[in-house]
Amino acid sequence: MAKPILTLTTDFGVSDHYVGAMKGVILSVCPQAQIVDISHEVKPFGISEGAYLIAQAYRYYPARTVHVVVVDPGVGTSRRPILMEAAGQRFVAPDNGALAMIYSRETAKIRLISNEKYFRQPVSRTFHGRDIFAPVAAHVAAGVPPARMGKLIQDYLRPVFEKPQRTGKRTWMGRILKIDRFGNIITNFHAGEFPDLDQRNFSLALGPREVSVMARNYAQCGPGELFAIWGSSEYLEVSIGQGSAAREVGCESGAAVELTVW
Amino acid sequence: MAKPILTLTTDFGVSDHYVGAMKGVILSVCPQAQIVDISHEVKPFGISEGAYLIAQAYRYYPARTVHVVVVDPGVGTSRRPILMEAAGQRFVAPDNGALAMIYSRETAKIRLISNEKYFRQPVSRTFHGRDIFAPVAAHVAAGVPPARMGKLIQDYLRPVFEKPQRTGKRTWMGRILKIDRFGNIITNFHAGEFPDLDQRNFSLALGPREVSVMARNYAQCGPGELFAIWGSSEYLEVSIGQGSAAREVGCESGAAVELTVW
Amino acid sequence: MAKPILTLTTDFGVSDHYVGAMKGVILSVCPQAQIVDISHEVKPFGISEGAYLIAQAYRYYPARTVHVVVVDPGVGTSRRPILMEAAGQRFVAPDNGALAMIYSRETAKIRLISNEKYFRQPVSRTFHGRDIFAPVAAHVAAGVPPARMGKLIQDYLRPVFEKPQRTGKRTWMGRILKIDRFGNIITNFHAGEFPDLDQRNFSLALGPREVSVMARNYAQCGPGELFAIWGSSEYLEVSIGQGSAAREVGCESGAAVELTVW
Repeated sequence: MAKPILTLTTDFGVSDHYVGAMKGVILSVCPQAQIVDISHEVKPFGISEGAYLIAQAYRYYPARTVHVVVVDPGVGTSRRPILMEAAGQRFVAPDNGALAMIYSRETAKIRLISNEKYFRQPVSRTFHGRDIFAPVAAHVAAGVPPARMGKLIQDYLRPVFEKPQRTGKRTWMGRILKIDRFGNIITNFHAGEFPDLDQRNFSLALGPREVSVMARNYAQCGPGELFAIWGSSEYLEVSIGQGSAAREVGCESGAAVELTVW
Repeated sequence: MAKPILTLTTDFGVSDHYVGAMKGVILSVCPQAQIVDISHEVKPFGISEGAYLIAQAYRYYPARTVHVVVVDPGVGTSRRPILMEAAGQRFVAPDNGALAMIYSRETAKIRLISNEKYFRQPVSRTFHGRDIFAPVAAHVAAGVPPARMGKLIQDYLRPVFEKPQRTGKRTWMGRILKIDRFGNIITNFHAGEFPDLDQRNFSLALGPREVSVMARNYAQCGPGELFAIWGSSEYLEVSIGQGSAAREVGCESGAAVELTVW
Repeated sequence: MAKPILTLTTDFGVSDHYVGAMKGVILSVCPQAQIVDISHEVKPFGISEGAYLIAQAYRYYPARTVHVVVVDPGVGTSRRPILMEAAGQRFVAPDNGALAMIYSRETAKIRLISNEKYFRQPVSRTFHGRDIFAPVAAHVAAGVPPARMGKLIQDYLRPVFEKPQRTGKRTWMGRILKIDRFGNIITNFHAGEFPDLDQRNFSLALGPREVSVMARNYAQCGPGELFAIWGSSEYLEVSIGQGSAAREVGCESGAAVELTVW
């Protein structure tokens, strides 16, 4: 039988012992777990960035994988811990929108995690990653049914940060989801909603810069030339030949992007 | 049977092949090992930082876990490799204080690693992580009894870098153990020694700044307000609402912190 | 039976979901795989740096390990994916020189990966790490014979970036392979080609600086003193007592180094 897979997405970085502590707790509960790091480099308190990362990664994992997402500025306050079942997989996170890009897209059952039997005791007020999310996820990975963790809820947080807004007959206002390591500017224009963009004339405006060339691969355009490209997650990206588009354009995650199509 | 767990704490970073080489050696000796990274971002030659990290992380691991700590500026000199048994777990490291925050607290048996049969041959003068610590740890993880590695010693290094010093009737001089990724300033004042601080008036001085508010969680105080908080490792931390306390205060690991209680 | 080992060396960094997506694909194909990160911090598009890292790491891994190397500026163009068998292990990578430091040294069988049955469908034009290299490697790790992936080829890329050139009776011109995390300057002068350097007088010139002292370990020379040392991969390095030689000398990967021996 395959060993249970458990992934981690956090803003803890890898310079402290926080991730190491969580892994110890997980392996104490579920020694056969295969732990996979998605990323610990979410910017501190960057809930929407964490939401984006796990939403891009989960679809590649096998059924029954347990994903732990801990970007948790409200730790120790009344914000609630939740357990979600969606797409045949399981997710634990604070109820702060970290899973919102998944439950806005997938049919999801969401539970309030309330069964303290599965917590590490005593529960601290500053590190629920170690005391609640890691042990609950490990118990689920080890076979405890999700229903044991708590009741289904409907009033989980539903932040809106995903879709571009139509602002005119030919225009949409979107935003930058993420700058990746290569300096690619990943926007929230998704191929599913703009399926014929390749066959149209378009202009993508980022501050004072405009991009109207669509490339098929990253090597197609010359050095220094900005272009648009459908990225591997099917979002529209802005890239540049042999360089960092984000540095060239001077933009950051969260900034506005206007698309005009005609 | 559960697979053996082996953790790594080093100052090797993750841009070079050093950690990858150690993992290859470990898996060649003990293919069933589950290898867990605590951190490879200890600052170069930062023995006390490595000592702090492993001392915060080990307690969450199951019995028989083998922890490898390699922060080793003296590699190739006469400094000795040691194997420690403590808290039901095992630790290998250079005898330079990297394990001192654990053996100052736990009952420990410490051996000089001398049995070259378990080394990778030839042993280089520059990379004992690969040639001594990784293979010895892997053999222990695979079931070789610690006693086979060498004799018990008593004269291992006992650096003093952990406890605050009392400097007056109401004052203690401590120091900053670590700045974490969020900019929390972690001091060496431990809850075990200051159990009633929550009920007292106190002042914590870091350079020209004073902190006298105790918070229960990171979100309790407003933006820009400095506060003290008992952190997840039970050390007193200085934090700030929605920001980096270390940047606000302008301090670094190792700096002095004065506590006054009345 | 030991679980299959699969290593990853990429320029994807760990802030994005790219590595997490690859691991999900791998575990979906080969759930029993033990995945090991060599490094994801190869500088973007740094083919020769990736080639160096995997060439230093592979030798420590057990037979049948599958190494995945994805530094792939030409993704989506006509550059080919290859599968190499060498030293009892397997390697998948783009045919862009990423494996060249291994096949210049080992007897290697190299195949063009062409059997689309083992690809993830649809294959994107921007992320073959996820769509071709990860699933092919996972199928090989799970037991699919390499010959199923495609035909042997001879016309793979053979870049020359490894060996120093003799430039005079007593002089060789080499280059800096890598600056490591400690600031050690790793040159491409290999112990195998300069076996008696320890017994000779020599001078190593990096820009305006000259180094003529050979040390036996990193702690032998005083603070601030530059010295040469045979590193753990048997390349000649330039280091400095308690500091970063690269910062002291002000040099970068790729720069020229002249060795004079007499």
